[in-house]
Amino acid sequence: MGEVKSDIEIARTAIKKPIYEIGARLGIPPEDLVPYGHDKAKVSAGFIARQREKKNGRLILVTAINPTPAGEGKTTTTVGLGDGLNRIGKKAVVCIREASLGPCFGVKGGAAGGGYSQVVPMEDINLHFTGDFHAITSAHNLLAALIDNHIYWGNAEGIDVRRIAWRRVMDMNDRALRHIVGSLGGVANGFPRETGFDITVASEVMAILCLSRDLKDLEARLGNIIVGYRRDRTPVFARDLKADGAMAVLLKDALQPNLVQTLENNPAFVHGGPFANIAHGCNSVMATTTALKLADYVVTEAGFGADLGAEKFFDIKCRKAGLKPDVAVVVATVRAMKMNGGVKKEDLGSENVEAVRKGCANLGRHVLNVKKFGVPAIVAINHFATDTQAEIQAVKDYVATLGAEAVLCRHWAQGSGGIEDLAHKVVELAEGGHAQFSPLYPDDMPLFQKIETIATEIYHAGEVIADKQVRDQLHAWEAQGYGNLPVCIAKTQYSFSTDPNLRGAPTGHTVPVREVRLSAGAGFVVVITGEIMTMPGLPSVPSSERIFLNDDGFIEGLF
Amino acid sequence: MGEVKSDIEIARTAIKKPIYEIGARLGIPPEDLVPYGHDKAKVSAGFIARQREKKNGRLILVTAINPTPAGEGKTTTTVGLGDGLNRIGKKAVVCIREASLGPCFGVKGGAAGGGYSQVVPMEDINLHFTGDFHAITSAHNLLAALIDNHIYWGNAEGIDVRRIAWRRVMDMNDRALRHIVGSLGGVANGFPRETGFDITVASEVMAILCLSRDLKDLEARLGNIIVGYRRDRTPVFARDLKADGAMAVLLKDALQPNLVQTLENNPAFVHGGPFANIAHGCNSVMATTTALKLADYVVTEAGFGADLGAEKFFDIKCRKAGLKPDVAVVVATVRAMKMNGGVKKEDLGSENVEAVRKGCANLGRHVLNVKKFGVPAIVAINHFATDTQAEIQAVKDYVATLGAEAVLCRHWAQGSGGIEDLAHKVVELAEGGHAQFSPLYPDDMPLFQKIETIATEIYHAGEVIADKQVRDQLHAWEAQGYGNLPVCIAKTQYSFSTDPNLRGAPTGHTVPVREVRLSAGAGFVVVITGEIMTMPGLPSVPSSERIFLNDDGFIEGLF
Repeated sequence: MGEVKSDIEIARTAIKKPIYEIGARLGIPPEDLVPYGHDKAKVSAGFIARQREKKNGRLILVTAINPTPAGEGKTTTTVGLGDGLNRIGKKAVVCIREASLGPCFGVKGGAAGGGYSQVVPMEDINLHFTGDFHAITSAHNLLAALIDNHIYWGNAEGIDVRRIAWRRVMDMNDRALRHIVGSLGGVANGFPRETGFDITVASEVMAILCLSRDLKDLEARLGNIIVGYRRDRTPVFARDLKADGAMAVLLKDALQPNLVQTLENNPAFVHGGPFANIAHGCNSVMATTTALKLADYVVTEAGFGADLGAEKFFDIKCRKAGLKPDVAVVVATVRAMKMNGGVKKEDLGSENVEAVRKGCANLGRHVLNVKKFGVPAIVAINHFATDTQAEIQAVKDYVATLGAEAVLCRHWAQGSGGIEDLAHKVVELAEGGHAQFSPLYPDDMPLFQKIETIATEIYHAGEVIADKQVRDQLHAWEAQGYGNLPVCIAKTQYSFSTDPNLRGAPTGHTVPVREVRLSAGAGFVVVITGEIMTMPGLPSVPSSERIFLNDDGFIEGLF
Repeated sequence: MGEVKSDIEIARTAIKKPIYEIGARLGIPPEDLVPYGHDKAKVSAGFIARQREKKNGRLILVTAINPTPAGEGKTTTTVGLGDGLNRIGKKAVVCIREASLGPCFGVKGGAAGGGYSQVVPMEDINLHFTGDFHAITSAHNLLAALIDNHIYWGNAEGIDVRRIAWRRVMDMNDRALRHIVGSLGGVANGFPRETGFDITVASEVMAILCLSRDLKDLEARLGNIIVGYRRDRTPVFARDLKADGAMAVLLKDALQPNLVQTLENNPAFVHGGPFANIAHGCNSVMATTTALKLADYVVTEAGFGADLGAEKFFDIKCRKAGLKPDVAVVVATVRAMKMNGGVKKEDLGSENVEAVRKGCANLGRHVLNVKKFGVPAIVAINHFATDTQAEIQAVKDYVATLGAEAVLCRHWAQGSGGIEDLAHKVVELAEGGHAQFSPLYPDDMPLFQKIETIATEIYHAGEVIADKQVRDQLHAWEAQGYGNLPVCIAKTQYSFSTDPNLRGAPTGHTVPVREVRLSAGAGFVVVITGEIMTMPGLPSVPSSERIFLNDDGFIEGLF
């Protein structure tokens, strides 16, 4: 195989163009770019507002099979496809999500793609970047502080301290903060109560930022956040605490999309929240809609697997923002097929066509699921050096039986030159006008039935179970006028089911709903299933132990 | 008085120069400026390293009397004096501290000066700015997460969970987080224990960032942080948890000083931590030493009153960084003298020469205290429209009796044109070579005696009291080799004593030491006295209620 460079080594040797040049390619004048260093910029809200009347380009979604430890390369393929479309003469922009800081120090690698399909500067993108997530953390926690402060100073709104719905957030994997008792230590510190922290990406403020059309919309949504309930069960809103104005001020800059570039100097927006397992997990509406005005093709991603990422992209983001995706690319790897087919990680290097065939069931279901939204699907096989011709053919043959096509892509090793085939096929599909997008369920379906619809149609579960408390809560929200909201299911990314060890394409399983949370500002109901945590922990050997600055001042250990 | 513009209105109409022009004035080439927007930039570590051999300019400290609700204008005078020195032909740079986000939403106004002596962009400076404090929060909390994670996965280092010394931080005024029990909720969340949050500026990481000479020094200091103790009382360091590398990576950009400009387009570094009541409260050593290489005069600030700010500036920052201040300016106002003399806030508008005279005792002690460090002092009377000639003369006469001079300054209303007198006098004093700086106490004095020395010499207290536990802890640290460190006293800013209501120049009072914390990485021992809190709270009507974006997208309510 020769010597393979690490992602960070490749990224470090990238010849970046000044961000003003990248902006100019999209027609963004320098005064509408707010630079963060020489290679990152925010696009001004004023410029974005001036694009409203322009025609939209085509929207391509990149999604994937359920992730395995073998790695799939969803972001890598998103970036690669963007470069590939540019290579074949289309004006294309990539729209991906920002990286969460917390998991960088746990097990997860970077979120900027890999190999020769990356966005740069990858170190910045994986660390503080332009500070958006810090702004979200601040805005979220300001509201939390205002709630306890309101109660401390007399509780004029009559908040029931047992029914406070607003937790705190931190962009860190810190299991010790999941469940705390705060306000201890005496009179000066307030009224002790149970609460806890989620990771920042799970914040409703993150979802609001990602779904807002502009600053006015953002502020209105912030005001609509329900922070808790009074004894008579009426909701207390963030606007009741006069928190929305200051929160919007904290988020003013963060709302503007971030422009960077790929290794091939093509424009890329990196804006908004990852974590489709515990959040809605899509990049921002602002970035996507802006990109659609500036390019012929916009390639965006939704992960982890299509069961979470694509479903939420379609049912939440596209529904709310009026987006009409043209094509969905489902990323798969031969290695992941093998793992789904029962092969252990250490044996992935050996050919095993039978295991590939067996493992294809997972891929197959995702492809068929995507089609249920009226969007044509194509499979990208993200090539690994160990893949054999027979294994690749097995995937292609399988996908053909679904009435779709699987295209081998070598962008990781070759950049855009390795993904021209896929780029051409995507254009063909998109320009064929096959897409007839519609969400999976109508707005007016009852909330519990929405959960059941996703569970049966997408997860192929047999049933959804939930306590009376959960069902009563959903009914109460329906009575309060929130029944028309979509649901945002928090579930393990590793399986169609709520059991992370259940690979392949299980059927008839049970989806246990543990908790429901109303995000009235974002405009969805969060449904927490199985054992999924909204605050991750760190592993026994966190990757932070290997992250350091080398003698040249370069970062080692981020990958 | 006519119509008086608010600080934010003045700041908004400022005609800013591109930050590259400001940098060019200091000889900083564009490639060594990392822009954050068009009006803020970080100065590259490489450029800073290349200035080492240059000669230093002169260092002027601006400090103040104990703050009163009347307002003193320490930052305003620092900025004004910098502009004034430039006006009279000196190459001068201002070095002030960054604003903490938390208090912006409480009662405190901005930290960017006022009137016609401000640094801009004031909104950015008062909000996220270049993200330094967010980086500090992240680095601090990463270490906290790693501690609990280490214990969760078997506690190989044998940390005594009852003796963990590392709390968490948030840049928010949130009293509910002062004292918490974390890791509740069962096996997956770890071992329940008492802990809490401080405000970010009180973090040892903040102090480390402010005291580090370069990235290597920063990383070494981070490794030296003591996170807790084993059952045998030996310390567990951050480097034992392999946390220092990742923390340094998170702080890499934050360590580089931020360059902005004054309203008169003079260069200003805004870098490092405020809050001399609960922290050491000085801007960064990196900013000050860099500015000294680039300018004839560097004007920096230390607050609140000189009892906290100047003492720590001299005994911690100058001692550690080998700085030699040339002059100290003590800022006072007639209004504050009157308040110290017993006048109520609502009566400050009426002439009361007797009250001014009586209130001068507070000013007098600060002036004499500063002289104890061998630094010549001069008083700046920050003019208010209501001041009468007789009142101003009373202050001047009083200061003359101390062998110093008081100079009336009208920079708030007039900018540099109103502070030329002071600028000339400061130059005269500095170039007269009167300064013979030395810290108040030697390194080898025992820790408790250092506290007593500050309490008696600076606060004029009668005694320091502390539990046996506190004294034993200090002895234990001395036995471990930390006896040579300076002490950083956390005390109310409103009085020389630990009682915030005791104005003027009290003597013979008692300083109760509540708690001591070792900051082995920063290199000092924090001594918490009286009722001072390391996590502030919000008032009954937080200023956040008045902060919002107006219809033009401008921020209202930050002042």
